Amino acid sequence: MPGTVHAALWTLSLLAFADQAVGISVDAIKGTDVVRQLKHLATYSDSPAPSVTRLVYTAQDKEARKYIKQLMKDAGLTIREDAIGNTFARWAGADSSQGAVATGSHADSLILGGPYDGCLGVVGGIAAVAGLKAAGFKPQKPIEVIMFTSEEGDRFSHACLGSLIMTNIMSAEFMDKLIDMNGTSFLEAANKAGYHAASNQEFREKVKIKDGSVDAFVELHIEQGPILEDEGYELAVVTHISAPSLLKVNFWGKGGHAGGMPMRDRNDAALAAAELALAVEKAALDTGSLDTVGTSGKWSITPNLFNSIPRASQLDIDIRDIDKDRRDSVVEATKAAAAAVAKKRNVGVSMEFLYNLPPASSAPEIMDAVETAAKAIGASYKKMKSMAYHDAAVMGQITKTGMIFIPSHNGLSHHPDEYSSPEDIERGVRALALTLAQLAGSAEEADSEL
Amino acid sequence: MPGTVHAALWTLSLLAFADQAVGISVDAIKGTDVVRQLKHLATYSDSPAPSVTRLVYTAQDKEARKYIKQLMKDAGLTIREDAIGNTFARWAGADSSQGAVATGSHADSLILGGPYDGCLGVVGGIAAVAGLKAAGFKPQKPIEVIMFTSEEGDRFSHACLGSLIMTNIMSAEFMDKLIDMNGTSFLEAANKAGYHAASNQEFREKVKIKDGSVDAFVELHIEQGPILEDEGYELAVVTHISAPSLLKVNFWGKGGHAGGMPMRDRNDAALAAAELALAVEKAALDTGSLDTVGTSGKWSITPNLFNSIPRASQLDIDIRDIDKDRRDSVVEATKAAAAAVAKKRNVGVSMEFLYNLPPASSAPEIMDAVETAAKAIGASYKKMKSMAYHDAAVMGQITKTGMIFIPSHNGLSHHPDEYSSPEDIERGVRALALTLAQLAGSAEEADSEL
Repeated sequence: MPGTVHAALWTLSLLAFADQAVGISVDAIKGTDVVRQLKHLATYSDSPAPSVTRLVYTAQDKEARKYIKQLMKDAGLTIREDAIGNTFARWAGADSSQGAVATGSHADSLILGGPYDGCLGVVGGIAAVAGLKAAGFKPQKPIEVIMFTSEEGDRFSHACLGSLIMTNIMSAEFMDKLIDMNGTSFLEAANKAGYHAASNQEFREKVKIKDGSVDAFVELHIEQGPILEDEGYELAVVTHISAPSLLKVNFWGKGGHAGGMPMRDRNDAALAAAELALAVEKAALDTGSLDTVGTSGKWSITPNLFNSIPRASQLDIDIRDIDKDRRDSVVEATKAAAAAVAKKRNVGVSMEFLYNLPPASSAPEIMDAVETAAKAIGASYKKMKSMAYHDAAVMGQITKTGMIFIPSHNGLSHHPDEYSSPEDIERGVRALALTLAQLAGSAEEADSEL
Repeated sequence: MPGTVHAALWTLSLLAFADQAVGISVDAIKGTDVVRQLKHLATYSDSPAPSVTRLVYTAQDKEARKYIKQLMKDAGLTIREDAIGNTFARWAGADSSQGAVATGSHADSLILGGPYDGCLGVVGGIAAVAGLKAAGFKPQKPIEVIMFTSEEGDRFSHACLGSLIMTNIMSAEFMDKLIDMNGTSFLEAANKAGYHAASNQEFREKVKIKDGSVDAFVELHIEQGPILEDEGYELAVVTHISAPSLLKVNFWGKGGHAGGMPMRDRNDAALAAAELALAVEKAALDTGSLDTVGTSGKWSITPNLFNSIPRASQLDIDIRDIDKDRRDSVVEATKAAAAAVAKKRNVGVSMEFLYNLPPASSAPEIMDAVETAAKAIGASYKKMKSMAYHDAAVMGQITKTGMIFIPSHNGLSHHPDEYSSPEDIERGVRALALTLAQLAGSAEEADSEL
């Protein structure tokens, strides 16, 4: 198992380096500076403060991008923007032939979101690199801060567009189906915003990142849940990122008056949905794992009148797991149940996948580096899973990935009252800086070994 | 079984009279006259023609009542209006001590209804009596045409208010809960429309009709379904009127994010509703009768988002039967299932009855009279059940009841395109006239027997 031996050696060299990482002073990184930048970024919004509404490819999104690029320039980084707006700010390493150690997140928001979700990972990523520079650190590998285009799904009803296209996971056919609430396609919206291509296939080819160009990815993010605050931890080392499959299942029958139609002649579309929702629950429970969840959260019944037999129903079914095969087995059981229910009740059925995202496990090397960083700054931490989805999970399909969480006050996120304290932000950015330093390696250390 | 002997004698006397009823000429009753009156009545509407919107106690309802009272006066009938607006137009019989043979229906409409539902039974009832008068018929028993207040449920969310209060079936406590879409109570609305009482209890006491004051009731109505037209019949003799119980069941749990909450810790309110809806279906099927139906037609799920566990649900459950005990057994099974599901899933549950109306079976004497009348005018007819509810079913709780249906074009009703042809209307009114004549008996016949 050469991979294991390699990883073991890598871990050993990392441990040897840990003391030096601890030796880097990241005291120049101030939470209040990062908060000031986040607050300024939050002013690029289509809704009144404290809410933030910044959908991809809008005028406010363009202004926010300008501001972030200025922060990247101020940190002395070299900027490259790809054809759909994914933006890479590079700090050249001593050995530029190596893949970059990358961090980053997204700067778009959903409708009526808050100022921290995503933006912390971008602004904080730039601040972490600036802090390493200020400390006199010289990286062996290049370090990059990535701002991903359109992580939130509120404009095109799909999460993580930038990372999914960059990693070549999303097909051009799927991209062709992305339409916003006004009927504008992704292709039109991108061209209108100044990102030019004749087709989504062209975008896809232009945007695909080179194999091996990213050596590791680590994302700093707010937890978006109450666990760290409730349990009194300052940081989390994320071990797994759970990923959803989202299916829309439609049933249709002939309906009729609730009085006039005998039971045996009915094909009630709501009862088909009821049976399917219970089958989803059973399939999720049947895996025996606490990490498998299946939720029928959205029900649409037509005509939805007390005296009419439902003639149509639609269920949005969200199935998540940290293990892709186990998640997909529940999806298959759901599809089989939908077909069986439709046959039994003599109703029509159609199924559509809205999402089918890949989950990820954090690389042990990255988790070790985050733990070492947390210890170095004296932050308490716990290991936890992310039940929300992130660009880090997409990046995990092409490279080693990991995440650092900081507490979310009251667990609130996707909400104008989303809040993380300047102290928690400072700890998060400092831990990120020391993690990046460990993963990139010190050029001086490398020199001294020569 | 004295009742049976009495009924048999009554039927014999009816048969003896049948030939004479056949002998009455109702040719003076013209469908086109009735259609002209229905069309005029339809102009009292709060929505554009051809739709009719005439909710109880509105200005349009008051104008429509004036027009109907004028038609009653033109037919030489004596008018009495009770404290809530139920209106009785009386043709004195030779023996005024006997209970009246009554017909009638309602003149209110639902929102965006059509011109025939209800109105046919009022305008047609007056036309039938006028036709008998024109033919020189002299009734032994009094004949009455009743216009019931508020049969449709669109203002106060409850059907058949006028008949239910008049027959003392609806309690004052229940009446106190009747609130319209603007928050106006039944009591306030009635007082504002000129029907005065200090309390619903006072209304109830004032409105209760005297025991024995109605000897028989027969209602002429459009079918509101496609059966007569599809099968090519001109009339129906209604054998039973099915009645609904309407339950609203609420479940509530704690909700949560579709990703973060393990399956075993959930108390999903939508899954509780799903189990209950399937239990309602099973309970209705388990009676083994085609006349028992149970429908969960209206589903409300909160917050109804694909990525949130439903924290609340509401099901509107409509259970109908022509047999009250059998219907009530399904209601009881539904209540037990709701409690069991709530316990199993650890969710809160509450249940509320919106309706619990009594079904009715037509009196054999009335069905015989309608059949005789149909034969006398040469109309084809079938016996059928009414799956919709009517004032005739309420009247059936205090007297012998029956109904006559005429075809509804395309089965449409509760719709602006509701239509029955002048020919069908003419046959319906003529059949009603001959039915009333048989039930009231001829004063001359009675005289000749002395």
